[in-house]
Amino acid sequence: MPAYSLGQLARQFDLAVHGDPEKRVSGLATLAAAGPQDLGFLANAAYARQLGDCRAGALILAENMVERWPGSALVTPNPYAAWARIAELMNPRTAVPAGIHASAWVDPSAEIDSTAAIGPQCSIAAGCRVGAGVEIGPGCVVEAGAVIGDQSRLAGRVFIGENVHLGQRVLVHPGAVIGADGFGLALDRGQWLKVPQMGSVRIGDDCEIGANTTIDRGAIEDTVLEEDVRLDNQVQVAHNVHIGAHTAIAGCVGIAGSTRIGRYCMIAGACGIGGHLTICDQVVVTAMSTVLDSIDKPGEYGSGIPARPHARWKRILVRLAQLDDWARRLRRLENRQ
Amino acid sequence: MPAYSLGQLARQFDLAVHGDPEKRVSGLATLAAAGPQDLGFLANAAYARQLGDCRAGALILAENMVERWPGSALVTPNPYAAWARIAELMNPRTAVPAGIHASAWVDPSAEIDSTAAIGPQCSIAAGCRVGAGVEIGPGCVVEAGAVIGDQSRLAGRVFIGENVHLGQRVLVHPGAVIGADGFGLALDRGQWLKVPQMGSVRIGDDCEIGANTTIDRGAIEDTVLEEDVRLDNQVQVAHNVHIGAHTAIAGCVGIAGSTRIGRYCMIAGACGIGGHLTICDQVVVTAMSTVLDSIDKPGEYGSGIPARPHARWKRILVRLAQLDDWARRLRRLENRQ
Amino acid sequence: MPAYSLGQLARQFDLAVHGDPEKRVSGLATLAAAGPQDLGFLANAAYARQLGDCRAGALILAENMVERWPGSALVTPNPYAAWARIAELMNPRTAVPAGIHASAWVDPSAEIDSTAAIGPQCSIAAGCRVGAGVEIGPGCVVEAGAVIGDQSRLAGRVFIGENVHLGQRVLVHPGAVIGADGFGLALDRGQWLKVPQMGSVRIGDDCEIGANTTIDRGAIEDTVLEEDVRLDNQVQVAHNVHIGAHTAIAGCVGIAGSTRIGRYCMIAGACGIGGHLTICDQVVVTAMSTVLDSIDKPGEYGSGIPARPHARWKRILVRLAQLDDWARRLRRLENRQ
Repeated sequence: MPAYSLGQLARQFDLAVHGDPEKRVSGLATLAAAGPQDLGFLANAAYARQLGDCRAGALILAENMVERWPGSALVTPNPYAAWARIAELMNPRTAVPAGIHASAWVDPSAEIDSTAAIGPQCSIAAGCRVGAGVEIGPGCVVEAGAVIGDQSRLAGRVFIGENVHLGQRVLVHPGAVIGADGFGLALDRGQWLKVPQMGSVRIGDDCEIGANTTIDRGAIEDTVLEEDVRLDNQVQVAHNVHIGAHTAIAGCVGIAGSTRIGRYCMIAGACGIGGHLTICDQVVVTAMSTVLDSIDKPGEYGSGIPARPHARWKRILVRLAQLDDWARRLRRLENRQ
Repeated sequence: MPAYSLGQLARQFDLAVHGDPEKRVSGLATLAAAGPQDLGFLANAAYARQLGDCRAGALILAENMVERWPGSALVTPNPYAAWARIAELMNPRTAVPAGIHASAWVDPSAEIDSTAAIGPQCSIAAGCRVGAGVEIGPGCVVEAGAVIGDQSRLAGRVFIGENVHLGQRVLVHPGAVIGADGFGLALDRGQWLKVPQMGSVRIGDDCEIGANTTIDRGAIEDTVLEEDVRLDNQVQVAHNVHIGAHTAIAGCVGIAGSTRIGRYCMIAGACGIGGHLTICDQVVVTAMSTVLDSIDKPGEYGSGIPARPHARWKRILVRLAQLDDWARRLRRLENRQ
Repeated sequence: MPAYSLGQLARQFDLAVHGDPEKRVSGLATLAAAGPQDLGFLANAAYARQLGDCRAGALILAENMVERWPGSALVTPNPYAAWARIAELMNPRTAVPAGIHASAWVDPSAEIDSTAAIGPQCSIAAGCRVGAGVEIGPGCVVEAGAVIGDQSRLAGRVFIGENVHLGQRVLVHPGAVIGADGFGLALDRGQWLKVPQMGSVRIGDDCEIGANTTIDRGAIEDTVLEEDVRLDNQVQVAHNVHIGAHTAIAGCVGIAGSTRIGRYCMIAGACGIGGHLTICDQVVVTAMSTVLDSIDKPGEYGSGIPARPHARWKRILVRLAQLDDWARRLRRLENRQ
C-alpha cells in the first residue's frame, strides 16, 4: 500500500487531526495487531480497553476517546465511516479489464456496454442490457431480458433470472439467485398445481446481496428492493416482498411472501418474518426472532431465547408444560383468601 | 397476450360463467391493479374488501363471493387452481429450442434425447441419461450416471450428483444441489473420519426443488422424495430422509438425517425437524417450530414464539428463569392453606 | 464390489473376529436390508432390536452386542469408525484422471500441479496454486491468488475467493462459497457505506465444507477454520469467525462475526450463534438454540423448544404473556399470609 500522511487523509475525508499531521501510515490493521506503520480505528467502545497496549502509528477515533490514546489520531464523530473510506482509498479493488472473456457466451442480441467486463464461463442470454463499468465475474448466468445497471458487480457464480432489473452500483455476491420462481401452489384434486410466477424482481441502486441469498420473482407484480438495501448471506426473500430503502438484513433471515418491510429497518440474524405483514420504518428485530404480526410502531422487537446449560433449560421446558395447571392453582389460592 | 372470452375459458377449464360470456380479457392482474382488459382472482377471503374498488374486466371467484362483485366472473370452488391454469394458458413459457449449446460439454457416453435442450456452459458427465423434452439451463452440472426424466427442467446453475435419479416433470430451481455427500462422521482417536456416502437420491415425478435447496445422498440406501413433493428455497434435506407424496415444505426448513415425513404434510418456513423421526401423513407444522419427537396423529403442531416489543420480551425471559423458584413458592402457599 | 474375508478385514483394520474368519462379504448394507453376502454394522444401540431379523452375512459390532447376534462379526469398540474404513476400502471413489479439461479456463500464471485434475467449465484465475492430487470438479470458480492444498477436492460449482487458503485434504461440497465479502457496513448520513473486507479465509487440513455453505472473508484479519473442522450444508460463517480444530457444525447453523468457537465443539442443526462471543472447547449446543452469551465451561447448552399440538402450544403462549401479572399475584398472596 502507498503511504499517506494524517494531514492528507484529514483534508480528503474532512477529519480533524490530533497530534502530528506529518505522521505517515502505509498499512491498515486491528488495534491488537497494528504496528508503527499502521492505521487502526476504534468504533466500538467495548474495545477501548485495547487502547493501552495498542502500538498503531495512528488511530481513527471519536472525540471522547482522544484522551485515552497518547498517539496521533484522526478524529471524527463516525470513526467507522471514516475507516471505510480510508480503507477503500488505501486498498482499492484491482480493476478488471473491460471486454468479454473468450470462454463466456453472450447472445448476439444482448447489449453489452464497451466498458463492461464479462468474465470466464459466463452465459448472457438474449436481450440483456449490461451497463457501463459493470463487472460480471466468472460463471455467472444472466437470463433473457435482464438489465444490469451501470457500475454494478456480480462477483461470480450469480444467477439473474429473466427480466430481472438491477439498478446502478448493485453488488451481488457469489451463489446468489435473483429471480427464481416464487413458491406458488394450488392444491387441486389432491395434486399440487404450479401457479405461474409472472412478475420479476427490481433491485434499486446501491443494494448489496449476500452469498447464496435468494430473491424470488413476483407472482403477478414484482418483488422489490428499494435503494441501498443490504442483505447478508443466505437470506431468503419470497415472492412479492417489498423492502424499503436503507434496510439491512443479517444472515439466514427468511421473509415469507407479500410482506412489506419499511425503510431503515434492521433485522438481525436467523429471524423468520411471516407472510402478508406490514412492518413500518425503523423497526429493529433481534436475533432469531419470529415476526408473525404486522408492526406499526418503530422500535425493537424480539422473541429469541438465549441458550442456557441444558439441564436448566430442560427444567424450564417442564415448567412451560405446567403453566396451564399453575393458572388454575393460582386462581384457587386467590379464591380461598 | 392474446384475448380470451370468458365463455372460451369456462369451456376449457370447466368453470361457470356469471355475467357476460362474450366478455374478453387479455391480461392478468391483481385485484388492486387490474384494469378493464384484465382478469383477476380472489382466493383469499382476507382480500374480499378489495372487491369494492376493483376495476377488473372479470374475476375468478368462488360462488359465495359472486354477490359481492357486480362484474362478470368465472365461478369455481377453487379459484386459485383455475387461476393457475388460465395464467399458464395466457402466459406460456417460451420453449427453448432442442439441442446442445456450443459452449456446453457433454460426455460422449451420455444419452441425450434429441428433443432435449442443453444450455450454455453446462457439463454433462459420462453415462447420464437425459429424457425427452428436458431443458437444462445455463451452467448446470450433471454428474456421472445421473438420470433426468422426461419433461424435467433444471433452471440453471443446478448441481445433480452421481447416479441421482429425477422422475418426469421435475422442476429444479437455480443453485439447488441434489446429491452432495451426507454429513456422516465417525470420531476415531480424536479425529473425524469420513463415512462414505454410498446411497443416492431419488426424486419422484412432478417434484419441485427450490433455489439453493440441498438434498444429500443417502449413506447406504437412498434419500427419497415421492411424487409431487414441493420444496421451497434454501431447504436442507439430510441423508436418508424420506418425504411422502404431495408434501410441501416452505423456505429455510432443515430436516436432519433418516427422518421419514408422511404424505400431504405442510411444513411452514424456517422449521427444524430432528433426525430419526417418523411424522405421519397430514401433519402441519407452523412457522419456526422445532420438531424433536415423532408425530403419529395428523393435525397442527408448533413451537414458534411471535416477537413482541423487546422490553416486554425481556421481562418474559426474566420470568422464565424464575419459574423453578415459582414452583416452590406456589407449592409452599398451597401447603400453608 | 470385490469380496473380502472377515479375517482379511480384521487384520487390515485391527479388529477382532467373532465366528468364522473365512466368511466372505462382497456388499455393504443396512441391518434391515442386508442379505447373506453383505456386511452391516450396529453403532447406535437404538437399532439393536433389528438384530433379531437381520439376515446379514456378517456385522461390525461392539463387544456388548456380540451375544445378541448369532452370526459372524467383526468386533471393535468403535463400530462406526470401522464401518467408515471398510466402506472406503470396498467402495473406493473412481479416480478422476489428471489434467485440465478442454472446456476449463486456467490463467497462464496459475500453477497447477501435473497430478491435479481441473474439470469442465472451471475458471482458475491468475496466480492460483493448485496442489498435487487435487480434484476440482465441474463449474468451479477459483479466484486470483487462491491456494488449494494437496489432495483437496472441490466437488463442483464451488466458489473460492481471492487469496483464500485451503489446507491439504480439504473437501468442499457443491455450491459452497468461501471468501465472499463479510457484511461490513457503516451508516453515514443516512446511507450505508461498504467497509472493505481486506482479510481472507484460511481453512486447515482435513476440513469438510457442506453444500451451499458460506464462509466470509475477514474484515481486516482472516476468518479461520483450524484443522479437521466439519461443516454441514447451508452453514453461514461470518467474517473473522475462528473455529477450533475438530469442531463439527450441523446444517443451517449461522455464526455471526468475530465469534471464536473452541475445539471439539458440536453445534446441532439450525442454531444461531451471536457475534463477538467466545465459546470454549467441548461445548455441545442442542438443536435450534440461540447462543447470545460467551460460554466458558464445557457441557451441553440449549434453548430449543420441542413442538406440541398447536392448541396446547397456543395456550402456553397465552400463559407466557401473563407471567408478569402472575409475579404480582404470587407476591400478593405471599404478603397476605
